[in-house]
Amino acid sequence: MVKYTPIAYPISELIERRWSPIGFDSRPVETEKLLSLLEAARWAPSSRNEQPWRFIVGVRGQGDTFGLLADCLTGRNREWAPAAPVLVLTVAVTVFGSGKENLHATHDVGLATENLLLQCIACGLHCHPMGGFDGARARALLGIPKEAQPMAIVAVGYLGDGEHLSESLYGRDQRPRSRKPLIELALERWDKPHPLVVDEPR
Amino acid sequence: MVKYTPIAYPISELIERRWSPIGFDSRPVETEKLLSLLEAARWAPSSRNEQPWRFIVGVRGQGDTFGLLADCLTGRNREWAPAAPVLVLTVAVTVFGSGKENLHATHDVGLATENLLLQCIACGLHCHPMGGFDGARARALLGIPKEAQPMAIVAVGYLGDGEHLSESLYGRDQRPRSRKPLIELALERWDKPHPLVVDEPR
Repeated sequence: MVKYTPIAYPISELIERRWSPIGFDSRPVETEKLLSLLEAARWAPSSRNEQPWRFIVGVRGQGDTFGLLADCLTGRNREWAPAAPVLVLTVAVTVFGSGKENLHATHDVGLATENLLLQCIACGLHCHPMGGFDGARARALLGIPKEAQPMAIVAVGYLGDGEHLSESLYGRDQRPRSRKPLIELALERWDKPHPLVVDEPR
Repeated sequence: MVKYTPIAYPISELIERRWSPIGFDSRPVETEKLLSLLEAARWAPSSRNEQPWRFIVGVRGQGDTFGLLADCLTGRNREWAPAAPVLVLTVAVTVFGSGKENLHATHDVGLATENLLLQCIACGLHCHPMGGFDGARARALLGIPKEAQPMAIVAVGYLGDGEHLSESLYGRDQRPRSRKPLIELALERWDKPHPLVVDEPR
């Protein structure tokens, strides 16, 4: 399933084809692909090349990390995400080695995480990053110290047919992708659209 | 110039070829490419699809945004970055429409910004994100309100020969790329490397 993306200007196929499904197949992810996802994240840029990202990787059926991560999910994420074969918790180290606060840490984890998400597409996988999890529980279960911040749990796997989903969750996968128009995002000043953005997205 | 990246596992060419040069050519960036960069950023995922990213775009020779952004740079960024033809300030909107704080805003701006960086590579451009700028000055000069946070200024352009650079800056472009080994980043628990990462990066 390639979901239609109503782009206004041409973009890389990796970026255009990425979306966040709910209906994952239970088929495992090959280890070499999983390592490529993490490797892609590793090469993101960061403030002072601090690389404030860490990835706690849960593979279903291997150790107990997967179960612990699944147990941190909240709301409807608990219904569908544990069916994915891999859950990755992204964590930001919020202080520099010097002890000084790294004000770019969470932003830079976002840079690295987008690499991971796009590498999923390059590997024929799909992924779904979730903010809906209990960060305090993740800290407790996985031993994350106060100088680090759990950011997202990413479900990774192959796209399934969604047959096991409830009707309302299945419907979410069928919804068209939607974003704010570029004219609201690209600015010349705050609250002043950029004059280069003249047309409305298709 | 394709800079050598000592990858340990295969990754997408877009991710492998991205690096942050200092020696930009002054040649302008085509408007259609600039719009593709912003479009790529637009399709990133975000918590509750809030899309907390805004981009203040300065194009040299068009209006005064470029000069204002250049004037916000600090340290050695002032030496080289104004030679690039485009500067983009990324901004995180840190509250939801409801007024509640968006704890994922800066992270999600990182997701969108990585799309922008990778789209540069897809367009034959290079880019260099900088944390080294005066955020308070950017707020004042560009009218950014307190519920938004300036995150990075990204220099965008074609790669140059670096002939106009000082020796020490030229040397920075020649340095090999370097990252922490994956074994420090991919974990089973905090402070416990993941057993899947068995070999050292090449």
